[in-house]
Amino acid sequence: MIVVLKPNVGTEREEQLIGWFKSLGLGVHVSEGQFQTVLGLIGDTSKVDSDLVASLDIVDSVKRVTETFKCANRKFHPEDTIVEVGNVKVGGGNFCMIAGPCSVESEEQIVGIAKAVKAAGANMLRGGAFKPRTSPYDFQGLKAEGIELLKIARQETGLPIVTEIMNASDLPLFEDVDVLQVGARNTQNFDLLKELGHTGKPILLKRGIAGTLKELLMSAEYIMSSGNENVILCERGIRSYSDYMRNTLDLSAVPMLHELTHLPVVVDPSHATGMARMVPPMALAATACGCDGLLIEVHNDPPHALCDGAQSIRPEEFAKLAGKVMAVREASK
Amino acid sequence: MIVVLKPNVGTEREEQLIGWFKSLGLGVHVSEGQFQTVLGLIGDTSKVDSDLVASLDIVDSVKRVTETFKCANRKFHPEDTIVEVGNVKVGGGNFCMIAGPCSVESEEQIVGIAKAVKAAGANMLRGGAFKPRTSPYDFQGLKAEGIELLKIARQETGLPIVTEIMNASDLPLFEDVDVLQVGARNTQNFDLLKELGHTGKPILLKRGIAGTLKELLMSAEYIMSSGNENVILCERGIRSYSDYMRNTLDLSAVPMLHELTHLPVVVDPSHATGMARMVPPMALAATACGCDGLLIEVHNDPPHALCDGAQSIRPEEFAKLAGKVMAVREASK
Amino acid sequence: MIVVLKPNVGTEREEQLIGWFKSLGLGVHVSEGQFQTVLGLIGDTSKVDSDLVASLDIVDSVKRVTETFKCANRKFHPEDTIVEVGNVKVGGGNFCMIAGPCSVESEEQIVGIAKAVKAAGANMLRGGAFKPRTSPYDFQGLKAEGIELLKIARQETGLPIVTEIMNASDLPLFEDVDVLQVGARNTQNFDLLKELGHTGKPILLKRGIAGTLKELLMSAEYIMSSGNENVILCERGIRSYSDYMRNTLDLSAVPMLHELTHLPVVVDPSHATGMARMVPPMALAATACGCDGLLIEVHNDPPHALCDGAQSIRPEEFAKLAGKVMAVREASK
Amino acid sequence: MIVVLKPNVGTEREEQLIGWFKSLGLGVHVSEGQFQTVLGLIGDTSKVDSDLVASLDIVDSVKRVTETFKCANRKFHPEDTIVEVGNVKVGGGNFCMIAGPCSVESEEQIVGIAKAVKAAGANMLRGGAFKPRTSPYDFQGLKAEGIELLKIARQETGLPIVTEIMNASDLPLFEDVDVLQVGARNTQNFDLLKELGHTGKPILLKRGIAGTLKELLMSAEYIMSSGNENVILCERGIRSYSDYMRNTLDLSAVPMLHELTHLPVVVDPSHATGMARMVPPMALAATACGCDGLLIEVHNDPPHALCDGAQSIRPEEFAKLAGKVMAVREASK
Repeated sequence: MIVVLKPNVGTEREEQLIGWFKSLGLGVHVSEGQFQTVLGLIGDTSKVDSDLVASLDIVDSVKRVTETFKCANRKFHPEDTIVEVGNVKVGGGNFCMIAGPCSVESEEQIVGIAKAVKAAGANMLRGGAFKPRTSPYDFQGLKAEGIELLKIARQETGLPIVTEIMNASDLPLFEDVDVLQVGARNTQNFDLLKELGHTGKPILLKRGIAGTLKELLMSAEYIMSSGNENVILCERGIRSYSDYMRNTLDLSAVPMLHELTHLPVVVDPSHATGMARMVPPMALAATACGCDGLLIEVHNDPPHALCDGAQSIRPEEFAKLAGKVMAVREASK
Repeated sequence: MIVVLKPNVGTEREEQLIGWFKSLGLGVHVSEGQFQTVLGLIGDTSKVDSDLVASLDIVDSVKRVTETFKCANRKFHPEDTIVEVGNVKVGGGNFCMIAGPCSVESEEQIVGIAKAVKAAGANMLRGGAFKPRTSPYDFQGLKAEGIELLKIARQETGLPIVTEIMNASDLPLFEDVDVLQVGARNTQNFDLLKELGHTGKPILLKRGIAGTLKELLMSAEYIMSSGNENVILCERGIRSYSDYMRNTLDLSAVPMLHELTHLPVVVDPSHATGMARMVPPMALAATACGCDGLLIEVHNDPPHALCDGAQSIRPEEFAKLAGKVMAVREASK
Repeated sequence: MIVVLKPNVGTEREEQLIGWFKSLGLGVHVSEGQFQTVLGLIGDTSKVDSDLVASLDIVDSVKRVTETFKCANRKFHPEDTIVEVGNVKVGGGNFCMIAGPCSVESEEQIVGIAKAVKAAGANMLRGGAFKPRTSPYDFQGLKAEGIELLKIARQETGLPIVTEIMNASDLPLFEDVDVLQVGARNTQNFDLLKELGHTGKPILLKRGIAGTLKELLMSAEYIMSSGNENVILCERGIRSYSDYMRNTLDLSAVPMLHELTHLPVVVDPSHATGMARMVPPMALAATACGCDGLLIEVHNDPPHALCDGAQSIRPEEFAKLAGKVMAVREASK
Repeated sequence: MIVVLKPNVGTEREEQLIGWFKSLGLGVHVSEGQFQTVLGLIGDTSKVDSDLVASLDIVDSVKRVTETFKCANRKFHPEDTIVEVGNVKVGGGNFCMIAGPCSVESEEQIVGIAKAVKAAGANMLRGGAFKPRTSPYDFQGLKAEGIELLKIARQETGLPIVTEIMNASDLPLFEDVDVLQVGARNTQNFDLLKELGHTGKPILLKRGIAGTLKELLMSAEYIMSSGNENVILCERGIRSYSDYMRNTLDLSAVPMLHELTHLPVVVDPSHATGMARMVPPMALAATACGCDGLLIEVHNDPPHALCDGAQSIRPEEFAKLAGKVMAVREASK
């Protein structure tokens, strides 16, 4: 950690501060600049509260040299992580297509869509059973029953299933689910993350509604430091002042996350845009900048979907899109 | 709900859409404009997914006439709600001063601070027992023990206690807590909100890290529609691109929330700014624009605080600030 | 325009308001809802200040039915505009590759880069002569001399030249420039836009630093309504709280702008990311979602560039990228 | 400047980089950390492009020790600047009240409002003659005639006049204006700023629509380094995703700017909120956190104002507010 002192601090106060750092077991390297003195702290600074140091009246600013995320950091794990879901591999050059409806509504619906997306090239099935909704008056999902229907669809198609968990106390219901999704509103629900760290299950972790990349990686760190390294990161759009679109899909996060971490990165263009007709171009763009997979809402009857029909494409559109995705992936290599 | 159609839609498709709205039990008022047709939907539109309607290819845009929050809406409850915490009243012209450390650290610390802030004019004590921290490697709070120490401090001073709950499964530990705080990272943890709605306890609900006012009110709605009307809203700064400051304190939210809702609104200048020296001016500003109370971090030894010492003021600074707050409140009436 | 009244306004005040709208020459359509009354204004509402109406104490909210941009609106001009620059066409299915250094530095530099990017497939040359810099102490460009050097490079290669204008009083210097660029800091410099509208020259108009799409289109409207329809829009990243990246490239703006307007849309991945190594993936992503061209910084010696070397790629990297761009364009069709 | 190298860079490349810094005339202080090496650059680093250094593949990150703003920096000018406008002083403990209509409309209007706001305690008159409007179809101001009317109002009341300049070529028209205002859309119109630096006139510089504090100070630097130190900074709300309000008034900018710079800081609650009824609470809040003055829109007939009537208060409301402002100022000292 580097600590820049204000000008004209005076030797006595400077020495007090240095003494305090030394009492924390740190080495201190003093460098006198033209106007200001800079302290370099050497040793394990992960326990030093950099905000506190920055707030001291003799301190101008503080900079951490080493990131606070360790398990997720590519510096310490240069090789790509490959998360295995049944016989589907995610990351390390493997591409996954996760498709399905926003909400599971009935056996007929989920099995029908599962078959259609499988035929079109999807290798995992998504579907919401527990639904986080901004309004308490909106449909909240079929819950346990929805998970049972997903299992039936898996049996019919062989596709591994991905579904959102909102509450650690529901974990027993998810025992037979292949990938547990953490939604954008729970990215910093640290108690939930810790519990998921104690399962060995693949976790699909969405970026927070206004989350930074560092926050996303620190949330992955909660899961990984609790013992579970099977984390797939998901960019799903961030909140901005942009008009005409629900969220701003931040695709530059894809190559940047690939630099910062060894974890796979998938993209959800459906939630990012909130509009079915924007899904194909943004899915292709995500593919072109190197994502490890896509999460796409597909519904056989969007106008009658119980939830988020607005952003669902039809199976035949998905089939067409899947073909283009593969072509763009090839072209951008 | 108002639905604006695109130009030149054609009578047939327009009639199909009108027929669909009627099949949902709604009345439809058709108004032909110069270029575009506008449909006014009459009846209970709360079940209509406005995003879905907006996504139809013949629809230009959609506008809800009535807000989706009901219990929290001042239109339906014009009188200010007063939340009673022991014999402290919040809202309706009553001002509360909630002060205390970020984290409870020891009996000596919390009792000492409690006595000091009481002497300075605080009428509630805050202190964190369960701490949501971005990093899994940071201090996570004394948990159950912290709550016990808060109760001792209450016994010594008579101040009601406010502390954060992160997980509905911890509710039994909070049975004897006066006000349950929901932090910014849990503002949309809907399962937690529903559970808190089943307690009768006062809830201090913080605005999300990048939350809109509507989202805050919808989260209050989760608690209220589950049966608990004792909700205190809290502005605590929102994320922006502003440099030099952790968050951007959005004080215009105070008069705007007072217009939209009958619930009391308090302000937390400590988390908003993240810097002790910014707390006094922002606390005074919050008071001047009409908030119903303040939530202020006070610590007897900020440089050695285990958490967020950077934003804590000392008891003697709090005492001085409390005096000015009262004067500004008087002056701005 | 649609005006939603507050509940229980009273007939007298409602009639006053209706009378006022009628006095402005508008027709008024009254629709009584369950709780609230809605007024539909018919006629030319472009002169009505919707903010003022919204601020009246009996008004709940206001919604415009028709956008305030006319010349740029696809509703009134369904066909794609093709902007012709010499024999290069932009828009309507034609793809342009605009490449060159951030700043023109010397004849040798600009001619060398021009030849290299032409060989690699660029069909226009960019280079800054007048440079807007955040700091007055940074290099401000070669100005008139830079434009002369660009003309030499054009003579040597045949590539049309694109360069930024900051001030209408400099217009005489730009008489022989092919495309005039308006930078993100001048997107709402309305006096400049009006002057550019009086030239017949192609204008490359960048989105503002935190500009909405509507603002971008209204700025295009300034140019177009002054008589110049040759406007090329440019997405270049918007300001957000995202860490690790200078701006957030908003690629969903590409398909959305194509819906809203008939003007061509190009993307600048260099300024958006500020990092050379992020330019190739983001250029490919922009291509995959359908942009009409790219604006890419290329420098033969980035570490010694006088300006923004950090975001410049080398000619050989550009050549490689250009090949992939063409392949992705084909694959995403 | 501090440069943090990536781990395992190798001695040769490290020495190359150090050699390059030395060739720029800088001293280099090398500090070996546990994992990473840190270089401290000593000397005049203002010419080093920190973005370029950060982009080198062996560099992890870069931090400037000294801010790039000099003239505006409180470190080098600890005393408050007092800007004198006629016999009105701004800054250094003096409070100014600048009031008047958004647009000058007629002699009767501007003289009438000037007399009313003077009677209510204003000590400067504002009024727009040149109006930057998002739409080319909106009223653009009376221009030269508006300035003449302002001068008449000054003659009648003795109030110095404040009005916006959009274009350096209009400077001759502003020769007899007391304070030249730079609007939020021109905060980074560097050519205009430089020209204003060559006048000796007081400049009221508004923060950009999404401007950071550093950008605001760098824009002040453009004016000051061109020779004019009479700069008054103005917070006017920044763009965010917050609903229900046009901009987010960032009041924490007031105490933070007071720390960073010696220039006076005023607040414009009218443009920030866009709603007349929000002006009084936000004006009081701005006063309570220590601003040096307020800029408030006052109109005698808001519903018929040609521009921004929505955010104008009436003279009698202004009079009432002015009294409270003085009381809050006293109470918050």
